[in-house]
Amino acid sequence: MPWAGTLGSVSREGVTPQSEDFSAWYNELVIQAELVDRGPVRGTMVIRPYGYRMWELLQADLDGRIKEAGHGNACFPMFIPESYFKREAEHVEGFSPELAVVTVAGGKELEEPLVVRPTSETVIGEYMAKWIESHRDLPLLLNQWANVVRWELRPRMFLRTTEFLWQEGHTAHADEEDAMRETMWALGAYAGLARELAAIPVIEGEKTPSERFAGAERTYTIEGMMRDGRALQSGTSHYLGTNFAKVFDITYQDEDGKLVHAHTTSWGMSTRMLGGVIMTHGDDKGLVLPPRIAPYQVVIVPIGRDEAAERTAAAARDLAGELKRAGVRVHVDDRSQLRPGYKFNEWELRGVPVRLEIGPRDLDGGAVTLARRLGDQGKEQIPLDRAAELMPGILDDFQAFLYTRAERFRDEHTADVESWDAFPDQVSQGWARVFHCGRTDCEDAIKADTAATPRVIPSDAPEEHGVCFRCGEPSAYGKRILYARSY
Amino acid sequence: MPWAGTLGSVSREGVTPQSEDFSAWYNELVIQAELVDRGPVRGTMVIRPYGYRMWELLQADLDGRIKEAGHGNACFPMFIPESYFKREAEHVEGFSPELAVVTVAGGKELEEPLVVRPTSETVIGEYMAKWIESHRDLPLLLNQWANVVRWELRPRMFLRTTEFLWQEGHTAHADEEDAMRETMWALGAYAGLARELAAIPVIEGEKTPSERFAGAERTYTIEGMMRDGRALQSGTSHYLGTNFAKVFDITYQDEDGKLVHAHTTSWGMSTRMLGGVIMTHGDDKGLVLPPRIAPYQVVIVPIGRDEAAERTAAAARDLAGELKRAGVRVHVDDRSQLRPGYKFNEWELRGVPVRLEIGPRDLDGGAVTLARRLGDQGKEQIPLDRAAELMPGILDDFQAFLYTRAERFRDEHTADVESWDAFPDQVSQGWARVFHCGRTDCEDAIKADTAATPRVIPSDAPEEHGVCFRCGEPSAYGKRILYARSY
Repeated sequence: MPWAGTLGSVSREGVTPQSEDFSAWYNELVIQAELVDRGPVRGTMVIRPYGYRMWELLQADLDGRIKEAGHGNACFPMFIPESYFKREAEHVEGFSPELAVVTVAGGKELEEPLVVRPTSETVIGEYMAKWIESHRDLPLLLNQWANVVRWELRPRMFLRTTEFLWQEGHTAHADEEDAMRETMWALGAYAGLARELAAIPVIEGEKTPSERFAGAERTYTIEGMMRDGRALQSGTSHYLGTNFAKVFDITYQDEDGKLVHAHTTSWGMSTRMLGGVIMTHGDDKGLVLPPRIAPYQVVIVPIGRDEAAERTAAAARDLAGELKRAGVRVHVDDRSQLRPGYKFNEWELRGVPVRLEIGPRDLDGGAVTLARRLGDQGKEQIPLDRAAELMPGILDDFQAFLYTRAERFRDEHTADVESWDAFPDQVSQGWARVFHCGRTDCEDAIKADTAATPRVIPSDAPEEHGVCFRCGEPSAYGKRILYARSY
Repeated sequence: MPWAGTLGSVSREGVTPQSEDFSAWYNELVIQAELVDRGPVRGTMVIRPYGYRMWELLQADLDGRIKEAGHGNACFPMFIPESYFKREAEHVEGFSPELAVVTVAGGKELEEPLVVRPTSETVIGEYMAKWIESHRDLPLLLNQWANVVRWELRPRMFLRTTEFLWQEGHTAHADEEDAMRETMWALGAYAGLARELAAIPVIEGEKTPSERFAGAERTYTIEGMMRDGRALQSGTSHYLGTNFAKVFDITYQDEDGKLVHAHTTSWGMSTRMLGGVIMTHGDDKGLVLPPRIAPYQVVIVPIGRDEAAERTAAAARDLAGELKRAGVRVHVDDRSQLRPGYKFNEWELRGVPVRLEIGPRDLDGGAVTLARRLGDQGKEQIPLDRAAELMPGILDDFQAFLYTRAERFRDEHTADVESWDAFPDQVSQGWARVFHCGRTDCEDAIKADTAATPRVIPSDAPEEHGVCFRCGEPSAYGKRILYARSY
């Protein structure tokens, strides 16, 4: 894609340092790095090609996992009759404040207003009921990639936007056991995506009852730690029991000919994950992108004036061709009107994992200068004729480095907290591993005082019992849970 | 994906023959073949996995062409402030009757109503103006895969639905020459997609002024002939001149520092193309799918009872594994409760190009029985151990056969028409190649009498001059044009 070199209102002088004001850093960075622009309607975003490419790379990987496990992609209408939406009581209560409603169409007032989908359980439930008759039709495994709308009062690019992109899986099963297997499969797929593509060392587990999806029996989540110590929920999977099946009449004949309700699930991963990538890896200089989702894994900057410029540009193009053939996403920055230093800063801001510089002296020595975005900061020279062969390994190492760095950060900012006194400090900069009584009023009191909420009951935490760090009542859940402030 | 074997209200007794009632055939077939279901809101559709997979296969191919040519995918918001939409006079006049409007959101009446995009020139124009400053920012080549909404009074699955899926390319260029090059590039991409994937022998060319996109200087189209002789426009590409650039202030500094307007284009291909596939290749028995977009290219039906059933099912699974490794999309229909004859009919209805039957006798002879969906109708035996190796060639031949068959059909149903007398007959069953005066009132009179409209001024028609077949005035366009009834 061509490079839009200027951004009108936004200066190219870098962003507010992360350490100084995390929130300003984030808001400036997503715009300056040309991931997004603010939409014309409050809370909406324009995802620009550099940001959208990251979404496509996440999407391709997750879609492969979804298909491999036997799900079929479908496309349900985004306009849902208001009456459908109102059938499941908890569901409508949870989503009502966030709905956008179409009342006029084709020049006329509509008889029944149409809700623009905030999620599709209700419309898909209607069709599951129609399509499922026998136990032989189960499991019914559907997924869709779609845009959804939730009216946001405190919008933030990627994290909470009025319209966002996601996939939503919707499945129906013969019994709880099979539906729970599916629920956990989706959770595992999200955890795999987060770890392997986004290099985010997420914690998987169940949500406490107060944090469940509206209408779910059980909600599972993956939570990542951002560099300000907050948690980001970046994918959820719900066991819906027979709640929606009862309301939408999703029944099947079992092997004995008896009519019984199906058990359903739903699960979603959204453009929010990109916000997670930015806040997990970014630093004062800008984005740091994991190679597996970086639009450009390598940028080559040819250096030199006049006739040297022609030589190095030609060498850069040749090398780019070789890297492409080796499966590397590469871009040659040959803009003649800009100085190398300017380009270096720009590609650092945009988080490109590896920069290759080719100057006349590099060429004379048959070499190219390599600079990683993070980690081993010193530049090094590598042989020009081996660069394409070495690059996949260099990128894999960088991907692994980012994961390890994020994991270390998370572990350093997570601590067991036994008492209420020590709690505010810990959640001001990280996560607290605590025993909690499980009572909603106790959760509410903690939230009111510290803004921290129960994020997850980690699946792999050991069995332990104790007393609630705040109220002293016996602990629930049979293990410690993670508490944090969150996005 | 699991097979939903029953469809409630729809019988599996086959569809109305195409020759008897083309329209009933189409409407019944898209539902029975499980491509789509009717949506809950009038004019909307649910695209089921079998239909959506075809869309994904088209999408993957076209997306590759779009990226290869240097375009970046993006995602613009679907809610457009009404005021943006009203800026280009012709554009708003063309689309106003079809708009869906959000007036309530987050529990409140909105100050400014939001139009749900019917197309995105207006919102993308706003951002082009923001992002383009210098000639170095051009061309700006954007594309998005999106859902759009146009309120339809006479909806028909795939062809005209209230919500549909498409891609819309939007590009800005320094001058007319570069913008026209882009316009023709997109037209060529659509023609390639139609011919190579959908096996539709489309005719490319320009639209007459009356058939232009609202706001365009020039509109180009690809038109395919359906088996009832009507034309289907299945992709359009527009040169917008500086119309949108002037309204949205899309300007750039040229090399001399002068501020000038950019020239823009837009182009779209939608789920309509799937309607074209169905109506180009289908027959009385049901769908006939081109292998390159068939969800299943091959279905294997194991045959036999009791212990023979186990043997043939095992052989079917082994063969499916081999075919998958050879890159073939294959499905084993091992539903034990259904007879082979029922399965054969069902997969014929669903248009699978090749069926392989494995019975005990086939197995004893080391063979498998092959039946093509069309063409060489006789079953033949092929060696079981060579089936995977032969299949890609068999599928390629079938793809080519469908193209040639459709091309022959089109040519047999297209004729030069010199007089008004002969015209109604020709357009009742095919296309008429005519000289036309180019006057709108003459076009209108023809349409009022016969429902036929000018479909395309074919790019590759030879230069010829004559007199209008209806009014006798000198011909316009410098060549014959195609007239037909259309969808």
